[in-house]
Amino acid sequence: MVASAFLPELWTEILIPVCAVVGIAFSLFQWFIVSRVKVSGDQGASSSSGGAKNGYGDYLIEEEEGVNDQSVVAKCAEIQTAISEGATSFLFTEYQYVGVFMVFFAAIIFVFLGSVEGFSTESKPCTYDSTKTCKPALATAAFSTIAFILGAVTSVLSGFLGMKIATYANARTTLEARKSVGKAFIVAFRSGAVMGFLLAASGLLVLYITINVFKIYYGDDWEGLFEAITGYGLGGSSMALFGRVGGGIYTKAADVGADLVGKIERNIPEDDPRNPAVIADNVGDNVGDIAGMGSDLFGSYAEASCAALVVASISSFGINHDFTAMCYPLLISSMGILVCLITTLFATDFFEIKAVKEIEPALKNQLIISTAIMTVGIAVVSWVGLPSSFTIFNFGTQKVVQNWQLFLCVCVGLWAGLIIGFVTEYYTSNAYSPVQDVADSCRTGAATNVIFGLALGYKSVIIPIFAIAISIFVSFSFAAMYGVAVAALGMLSTIATGLAIDAYGPISDNAGGIAEMAGMSHRIRERTDALDAAGNTTAAIGKGFAIGSAALVSLALFGAFVSRAGVHTVDVLTPKVIIGLLVGAMLPYWFSAMTMKSVGSAALKMVEEVRRQFNTIPGLMEGTAKPDYATCVKISTDASIKEMIPPGCLVMLTPLIVGFFFGVETLSGVLAGSLVSGVQIAISASNTGGAWDNAKKYIEAGVSEHAKSLGPKGSEPHKAAVIGDTIGDPLKDTSGPSLNILIKLMAVESLVFAPFFATHGGILFKYL
Amino acid sequence: MVASAFLPELWTEILIPVCAVVGIAFSLFQWFIVSRVKVSGDQGASSSSGGAKNGYGDYLIEEEEGVNDQSVVAKCAEIQTAISEGATSFLFTEYQYVGVFMVFFAAIIFVFLGSVEGFSTESKPCTYDSTKTCKPALATAAFSTIAFILGAVTSVLSGFLGMKIATYANARTTLEARKSVGKAFIVAFRSGAVMGFLLAASGLLVLYITINVFKIYYGDDWEGLFEAITGYGLGGSSMALFGRVGGGIYTKAADVGADLVGKIERNIPEDDPRNPAVIADNVGDNVGDIAGMGSDLFGSYAEASCAALVVASISSFGINHDFTAMCYPLLISSMGILVCLITTLFATDFFEIKAVKEIEPALKNQLIISTAIMTVGIAVVSWVGLPSSFTIFNFGTQKVVQNWQLFLCVCVGLWAGLIIGFVTEYYTSNAYSPVQDVADSCRTGAATNVIFGLALGYKSVIIPIFAIAISIFVSFSFAAMYGVAVAALGMLSTIATGLAIDAYGPISDNAGGIAEMAGMSHRIRERTDALDAAGNTTAAIGKGFAIGSAALVSLALFGAFVSRAGVHTVDVLTPKVIIGLLVGAMLPYWFSAMTMKSVGSAALKMVEEVRRQFNTIPGLMEGTAKPDYATCVKISTDASIKEMIPPGCLVMLTPLIVGFFFGVETLSGVLAGSLVSGVQIAISASNTGGAWDNAKKYIEAGVSEHAKSLGPKGSEPHKAAVIGDTIGDPLKDTSGPSLNILIKLMAVESLVFAPFFATHGGILFKYL
Repeated sequence: MVASAFLPELWTEILIPVCAVVGIAFSLFQWFIVSRVKVSGDQGASSSSGGAKNGYGDYLIEEEEGVNDQSVVAKCAEIQTAISEGATSFLFTEYQYVGVFMVFFAAIIFVFLGSVEGFSTESKPCTYDSTKTCKPALATAAFSTIAFILGAVTSVLSGFLGMKIATYANARTTLEARKSVGKAFIVAFRSGAVMGFLLAASGLLVLYITINVFKIYYGDDWEGLFEAITGYGLGGSSMALFGRVGGGIYTKAADVGADLVGKIERNIPEDDPRNPAVIADNVGDNVGDIAGMGSDLFGSYAEASCAALVVASISSFGINHDFTAMCYPLLISSMGILVCLITTLFATDFFEIKAVKEIEPALKNQLIISTAIMTVGIAVVSWVGLPSSFTIFNFGTQKVVQNWQLFLCVCVGLWAGLIIGFVTEYYTSNAYSPVQDVADSCRTGAATNVIFGLALGYKSVIIPIFAIAISIFVSFSFAAMYGVAVAALGMLSTIATGLAIDAYGPISDNAGGIAEMAGMSHRIRERTDALDAAGNTTAAIGKGFAIGSAALVSLALFGAFVSRAGVHTVDVLTPKVIIGLLVGAMLPYWFSAMTMKSVGSAALKMVEEVRRQFNTIPGLMEGTAKPDYATCVKISTDASIKEMIPPGCLVMLTPLIVGFFFGVETLSGVLAGSLVSGVQIAISASNTGGAWDNAKKYIEAGVSEHAKSLGPKGSEPHKAAVIGDTIGDPLKDTSGPSLNILIKLMAVESLVFAPFFATHGGILFKYL
Repeated sequence: MVASAFLPELWTEILIPVCAVVGIAFSLFQWFIVSRVKVSGDQGASSSSGGAKNGYGDYLIEEEEGVNDQSVVAKCAEIQTAISEGATSFLFTEYQYVGVFMVFFAAIIFVFLGSVEGFSTESKPCTYDSTKTCKPALATAAFSTIAFILGAVTSVLSGFLGMKIATYANARTTLEARKSVGKAFIVAFRSGAVMGFLLAASGLLVLYITINVFKIYYGDDWEGLFEAITGYGLGGSSMALFGRVGGGIYTKAADVGADLVGKIERNIPEDDPRNPAVIADNVGDNVGDIAGMGSDLFGSYAEASCAALVVASISSFGINHDFTAMCYPLLISSMGILVCLITTLFATDFFEIKAVKEIEPALKNQLIISTAIMTVGIAVVSWVGLPSSFTIFNFGTQKVVQNWQLFLCVCVGLWAGLIIGFVTEYYTSNAYSPVQDVADSCRTGAATNVIFGLALGYKSVIIPIFAIAISIFVSFSFAAMYGVAVAALGMLSTIATGLAIDAYGPISDNAGGIAEMAGMSHRIRERTDALDAAGNTTAAIGKGFAIGSAALVSLALFGAFVSRAGVHTVDVLTPKVIIGLLVGAMLPYWFSAMTMKSVGSAALKMVEEVRRQFNTIPGLMEGTAKPDYATCVKISTDASIKEMIPPGCLVMLTPLIVGFFFGVETLSGVLAGSLVSGVQIAISASNTGGAWDNAKKYIEAGVSEHAKSLGPKGSEPHKAAVIGDTIGDPLKDTSGPSLNILIKLMAVESLVFAPFFATHGGILFKYL
């Protein structure tokens, strides 16, 4: 039982930061390549001379059409600047408000956790092993607060840098689309990879450094050390919540508002520069889909690591102070960076995209390749990083686990992610029958389109839930909550690739917008639309991953919370638990009601403003006058800042209120209820939305006989499809993806506050 | 502890059947009054002469307008006959198919339960008290099968008679609407009461007789007796499932199909006789909303009684053979019939409706009055029907309960029902801001209407869930699962009134249809529309009750199942339970996907047929040729019979498969998961649908300045509202209301098969 891992501690200490640095370096290298596409007007000329190696000698579509207008490049640069400035200014405003909240919440953490032992500075017997001495609760309070702030700051940086990269890449993708669809794809994909690797590597690095710094104080008290580390997950996730909700409301208010007046009333194309909300719409993609998602997946990653570490700290790894085995979760992530690095080369260097139809397979191959290689990687890490046999804490008992069993736990999570990805693709890509059926139902109008779309979303839940259930069953049976936590990490181990293909979508979307606004040839728009259609599917896949991993992560956090709160069973057959379960299952609905209503109200305001501009600015429809973009940007900004507060408070305050007034049993019920109910709504909402979007694109693209019979743009079926797409917007980009943060965040918050609830919680029942 | 109830056994034996007979007599009396409105053409003349007492001397709207055309009455009679024949023929077809299934399932019950002790005919020691001898499992198998068949037959009769009454009353309501809105209201309401009382009383009577007949064989083995009685609940609910799903698909396929072509494409009014699907649509109201709902609420009532009885049989009531206390659930229902009888008089005799705006308050008062009087009734029953102190079985232990505590359990259920009713009214009536906001969002088109409607539905879940949670907490804390079961009975104790106001809706809807088809004055249509708008709200309230009680009932059944299967804890922190919970929470989505897709596909077929008729029958649009109604009726019939099988099988087979392969722990998880998740979707779906329907009616009626600014019929906001209404149809009338059957049925089925699962279940884990 005291056998330790094969890999010496020193090597672990070296390997983890080295992998992280390699990831960051790779990310910077990708950025360097992207930056070689010049955007500024006067330098644009050089793009048709220069070295032929990277394709800069290719002729442009404009040349072919005899209209190589250099002013187009200048226009692109101008639009890019507007988008980038809008996004930056929104994020700064958002971070100001959230910053206040963070400071306030940090104070709560410190006070609540400090109060557990009445702010005593004396050491105490450990919770799980009373023969040892652990650091005082006040220290845990202080270090948890620091970890919380670190997590929050890292999350902010992840989102912000992601946005910067995306707004740097969008116009470059447009310009490359003049050359070929393959070149545009590579720019968009490389930019996604910049974000993916930067985020995965910096998340790992910060966590690793934090552990080592905290260790200086905690010394041998690993229980306390990793309890304090959980604050990192909480910080990451709470920022992610505000990022997702705020960004989600921003982007969809602008999008819905722009579409309702532009496409439906005024019959002008998407992203038409005459539409006053068009800049806000493109800013939204960057602050919602990019910054929000970056924060979100960083949060998942941080929480999964924290859940695994905190369970490990009270298992034989922690008790025996086997540092390498303890760092198994970090080693998995390190291996993940290397695997994703190799995988990326398949898309950027080993193969080249030549036609539109190769885009989706190329992205899908990324998933398959990374999963396949990672399986080998996990085997290696499990063999060198773990002792052949060890014990894992299992709600009061220790369970013996073999290293091959833990290997299977990680694998089952990894492969479940792939299955979820494929199922999501099947239900949201317009290459398969589900979306085509939805498109077909547009023949009879918007109502049947919505009915079929909702049914599709509900149906798409089935297989992912079975995949998650099987992962839970296998990992839970083999290694209790540690197994579930590493299964989540397995699903997230290829996060760099996942993020790359996910970020690729909004970048392509923006690229299309820029092409339209800069007045480029419609053939360029067709190319970016093809990139974007694939992007809708990958976005849905990304959300599938995020939700699947969130389910596993929050179960693991829930298990860690229960252990830490000293609860041994969560029996459904007790009144306290069953009411928690029922109310918990209701929370995702409450939350969705808030966020959807927010998008609706903000969109109404946007519609009024856009209508007002069309009605009062002379020459706007004719294109002779410029619309007032700034007012629309301001409406989106104000609405999203104002509207993100109530849902944010619902999620952040629920665990505190329930734990404090009703106690840990009811809180356990709430966590389990919101988990099992939230997963379903999240999956169905994001797939329904993705399907509607692609059903519309299917009709617009008109590549098959069937699709042509439904089109063209402006036909009755197409109008019905646009309505479905608009309804899907808040589902897939606001309420759906925020729900996975809801379930994770409530779990990690409960875990952080567990000692407080165990000591002071449940006051309502105490006095009844 | 051996104190027995105040009421002697003989009195109990007399009072229960007397109350049931009084209920049936009252129901027949109401029918007699309704029958005095003559429908046949030649007798119609007498309705303007005759005794003045019942209002037969009032002048008619036609007379006022100078067009007292007797042919209108003949036309009404003709349409009524067509609707009645269509409904009868559909129900016969449905019952044939379901009959085959029932026989098959009855055989499964007998074989599975018989196999528990290898078909031995010898008596055995009782499960809960091994010092006593109980009847063999084979006897329980046989009697459970008989009870199952009895429940199924009673359910069929409830649905069928309800349909008969409704199709008898619809034309009579139309004819009375010529006189005044108050008279039309009373006919519709009385007819609803016929159904309500007939169903409540006959359900009670059959159950009572069954218990007494079974007792002849079982003698003192009350444990076995009431175990066998649970088959009654299963029979009632399985019929209800097929009735709700089949009827729901029928009605909505016809409704959606008729609306899509008629209202949206051809721009003809609802229920226009030129629309080929119009008869199918009106038939649908009777087979879906009336027959389906009748079966459904009968099922809830039967299951709640069975759950209470089976728990009581292993508590001190059963152990001490205190028959009066044992019959407490039946006494509550008996009292309920008397209370509802008095309540009905308030609507029919004590007050009279004079204006449209009095309709909704009158219906709402029914709820308030019945709840208030019933509170006193429960107090009386609890005082005379219960010993002052007794013990209740609580998962392996006995819990001491006072009679006032049980009184509170029933009350909390009763009052929670009222709260759910009010909240539902608030969210679905167009007198309040939520529906008006939804109507207002139609300004910007169908997309915002749908977004706001979905958000409204999600939001409407919050308070009902808290109400249910509080009921569960109070009743569970006081009297374990018995408390939950009697709380459910409390909510259902005013079922006769609930059904009356619920059935009133579809009758008014039909009445409006008949007025339109018979070519009556539009002022009559306005009156029936006003009745119908109130009916939409009461239908939503009825669904709220059905869902709330279903939640309580299924929890009680779940508790009874767990007790009977010998499980003592259902710990979320075990892999078997958590995967069950996750998969169980997914089932309502799977089920909804099936039913919504079914409605969508059937509606598409209907649309094609209706379009075909409009295109190929010359003179149809001009009103010179008659459409082919029969083909549309056939399409709805065929589609609903075919499409009800898969969702039916999903619900019926899931407990069998899970219990047999995965065992009782996983099955417990599945039941809990589907309960907590299904309740939310059911409430939100039916409220969203109700709100859309009334938002449309709000715009059409145009009673306020705001409403007028959105209208009139045919305006863009109105078109958007029609799309919302169409989407809401399958949500509120097919998938939503079927979900409460899903959660109840899986629970009662698990309860019936519990001994089988306990003996032979979980084979997958046994061999792994």
